[in-house]
Amino acid sequence: MPVKKKLAEKIKFRKDIRNRIMTLSRADLEKFFNPGHIAIIGVSVKDYRFGGASFLFKLLEGGYEGKLYPINPRGGEIMGLKVYPDLSSLPDVPDLAMVCVPARFVPSVLEECARIGVGHIHILTSGFRETGLVQGHELEAQITRISKDKGLKIIGPNCMGPYCPSSRLTAWGAIPGLSGSLAVISQSGGLTQRITEYTRYLGVGIEKAVSFGNGSVLDSTDFLDVLSRDENVQCIAMYLESVKDGRRFLNTVSEVSKKKPVVLWKGGESDAGAATAASHTGAMSGEQKVWEGLYRQTGVIHVGSMNELVDTVLALTLLPAPSGKGVFLIGGGGGNSVSYSDTCIREGLEVPALSDSTMKALKKSVPTAGSIAGNPLDMWLTFLDANYLGEVLDLAYRDPAVSMAMVDRLIVRKAFHVPDGIDSNPEAIKRVTERQHEKPIVFIVDSDGGDPDLAQKGAVLRAQYCQAGIPAFPSIRRAARALFHLYRYYSRRT
Amino acid sequence: MPVKKKLAEKIKFRKDIRNRIMTLSRADLEKFFNPGHIAIIGVSVKDYRFGGASFLFKLLEGGYEGKLYPINPRGGEIMGLKVYPDLSSLPDVPDLAMVCVPARFVPSVLEECARIGVGHIHILTSGFRETGLVQGHELEAQITRISKDKGLKIIGPNCMGPYCPSSRLTAWGAIPGLSGSLAVISQSGGLTQRITEYTRYLGVGIEKAVSFGNGSVLDSTDFLDVLSRDENVQCIAMYLESVKDGRRFLNTVSEVSKKKPVVLWKGGESDAGAATAASHTGAMSGEQKVWEGLYRQTGVIHVGSMNELVDTVLALTLLPAPSGKGVFLIGGGGGNSVSYSDTCIREGLEVPALSDSTMKALKKSVPTAGSIAGNPLDMWLTFLDANYLGEVLDLAYRDPAVSMAMVDRLIVRKAFHVPDGIDSNPEAIKRVTERQHEKPIVFIVDSDGGDPDLAQKGAVLRAQYCQAGIPAFPSIRRAARALFHLYRYYSRRT
Repeated sequence: MPVKKKLAEKIKFRKDIRNRIMTLSRADLEKFFNPGHIAIIGVSVKDYRFGGASFLFKLLEGGYEGKLYPINPRGGEIMGLKVYPDLSSLPDVPDLAMVCVPARFVPSVLEECARIGVGHIHILTSGFRETGLVQGHELEAQITRISKDKGLKIIGPNCMGPYCPSSRLTAWGAIPGLSGSLAVISQSGGLTQRITEYTRYLGVGIEKAVSFGNGSVLDSTDFLDVLSRDENVQCIAMYLESVKDGRRFLNTVSEVSKKKPVVLWKGGESDAGAATAASHTGAMSGEQKVWEGLYRQTGVIHVGSMNELVDTVLALTLLPAPSGKGVFLIGGGGGNSVSYSDTCIREGLEVPALSDSTMKALKKSVPTAGSIAGNPLDMWLTFLDANYLGEVLDLAYRDPAVSMAMVDRLIVRKAFHVPDGIDSNPEAIKRVTERQHEKPIVFIVDSDGGDPDLAQKGAVLRAQYCQAGIPAFPSIRRAARALFHLYRYYSRRT
Repeated sequence: MPVKKKLAEKIKFRKDIRNRIMTLSRADLEKFFNPGHIAIIGVSVKDYRFGGASFLFKLLEGGYEGKLYPINPRGGEIMGLKVYPDLSSLPDVPDLAMVCVPARFVPSVLEECARIGVGHIHILTSGFRETGLVQGHELEAQITRISKDKGLKIIGPNCMGPYCPSSRLTAWGAIPGLSGSLAVISQSGGLTQRITEYTRYLGVGIEKAVSFGNGSVLDSTDFLDVLSRDENVQCIAMYLESVKDGRRFLNTVSEVSKKKPVVLWKGGESDAGAATAASHTGAMSGEQKVWEGLYRQTGVIHVGSMNELVDTVLALTLLPAPSGKGVFLIGGGGGNSVSYSDTCIREGLEVPALSDSTMKALKKSVPTAGSIAGNPLDMWLTFLDANYLGEVLDLAYRDPAVSMAMVDRLIVRKAFHVPDGIDSNPEAIKRVTERQHEKPIVFIVDSDGGDPDLAQKGAVLRAQYCQAGIPAFPSIRRAARALFHLYRYYSRRT
């Protein structure tokens, strides 16, 4: 196929999908995220395979309570459910159709959906625009045309679709979904799965998540618009590789950011990344400088990795607004304290000197040798004695230079000379949560060091803190960056 | 105490210690790192306490085979060893004295050392210059003067001292030391402990490590000089907060870097960090721009955190020199592949397009839908089939654009639709190590995600890879940065 023709096709296609605005209503959200029945078209009845069969399995595993209609022309039975030969032979009109047949069969399935009155569709199938082949582009253009002609609302193709723990629509995950106030809008299925799983372990629940892949009909802006109007949603996290209508996205994200924080991770920032994005979701990632303008002009919170996205969500969902960017550090050792200061400054925070009266009070309890009174404070007693930690926090919180606090929850390494008995965790959690409403406070639980047991212990501790409402991070760098995002979001809003 | 007098004291003190060059010989190294007998002055016989008693305990635990002489004026017995009342009553002249008495008693202990002929001393005690108090400054100046007058070679004060697994001088650590080719020179005891423990878990052994704290007599440059001449040392890692003689350090690090890689983590880069460094080791961290000049002018490898230090050491000790900065990425999913490219570019590497012939060969085995042929390669078979992974690497290694390779060792999350059966680990290690001498190759084992079991599994996998000689990192960012340091070190040397 000559390159020129390919490009012409592409441009034609892009024009075709541009400027289509599809406003989703609350009723649409219900159909997608709380369907009473779901038809799964293309369920392999022979063996367990990724696709229709795995979706069916995962929905059953997750305890989805609506009706499930597996469809395969051969009929028969799978996982205890009757298999229907086609959509037309179903006893009901399903609220949602999940399309898992090979790409070339998708248009005819959509026609059948339209015929029987299924208006809400998730297309899992890949093999469209993202292949870079003319055939794939043509097939995707067909999807868009059918959607337009018949008024079908479509998530996809090439994606994992909707996810909603409150309706047990958790089509990925052996782990139960956790309901909460976060919405996730993402072009990557794998990353959406990981984000929902990651936040769930840390006690941050999901209201709705959607992996929308190529976004040939419903695009990021459509989801952003409708989810920002969902009163259960308090924070929105996005992973995007492209947007169809840049101006509309910019306006929408500007408006939404005034009301709710929007955390945006943009994939395809480098040329190499953009080329991969084209192969992943057929995305035209766009000029990096245009995106940088958007980060500046809107109140969107721009992050560069999944960890940064999750960390920032933790801070935004669990912490109050800080009054400034001065952070009080409770360190764990001298070298750590030095490098913690460096890192906070590098990430945009301040590590202010404490006032004379704070210092005077601190020096009463901090010995001259082997400890450091000041900011950072390096004092073993903060790990050993939760009451002392509480007193130190009270002292620091009264200091006008202090807007936030970070506590290193030092994990005792085998190489250290102290016995592993500094576990005042439940008490420390209590002392800290009592003060959590005053100023943002977070824990650092750095369990790096190659020791698998330590790695596990660190993850358990972080989960305990987070589930108690105190963000906990595996490194000072990640903590500082999350707090900087928190500070900046609120400082731009006011 | 008036500030002016304090400052005058300080300056006087700084002048006093400046320009003292103490060249250490091989015989000095033997005394410090392979002593036949050690006196520990200041061992609490009442209870287990950090200090003399914990050092004694840890040396015994680590299997140190020389003689140990605990010293306490009360005499008696501890941990099955006779306690001597003072140095003068010992049956031998110890090779090394570890001084753990309170700061005010240190000068008289040093005088006693000189009297009986102990020339090599480690002072654990803190409470000197780092307190910021005139008394502390005076005490430290006394140490320096006694050292000068009597020719004592002193590590410290305010530090954890020497560490040498080959002589079982592992005074920290319930874990056995691992002997190898790395030297560590550090002003922080806690960080030294963590670095030796971290590298040990990853199979990178230590030849000698020294935590030297305030460095009032022997300074970083002294250790750098002598350890660079140690033929067992192949790579040197440093954590510094200050140097006494900047010019001498610059010259030494320049020369050493031509022969052996020197990885330098400088604490106190920010003003806040510098202030903390002053309280930690009494360091005058110096102008940041002076340090930046040093990073540019010498071949030193500048890192900003302990993780970056350890990651870079892994790359330097396990990998061959790369021919360029083009990296071939074997990704794990579409979204991951996009962000992996972005991250590599951000960290200074290149993700080159593959040649036409490589692409042609790749496309034979990579399906059009659901996978991505190219760089990054997103192809499930690379996780499932180690032989296929080997073939892909052979293909990529023949491509002149490819200088290094990174393989995402995807860990199956519970949220994924695939069963957890992609564990071709021993086979994959075999296929990769067979090719390790050709071009640098590393694994990424990202076990973030909040799941403690996953965190543990990831650490186990990373240790397996590293111990087999393949560097493995917990994130693409850390892997990319380590490879960038590797590339730059060799490109500057040639």
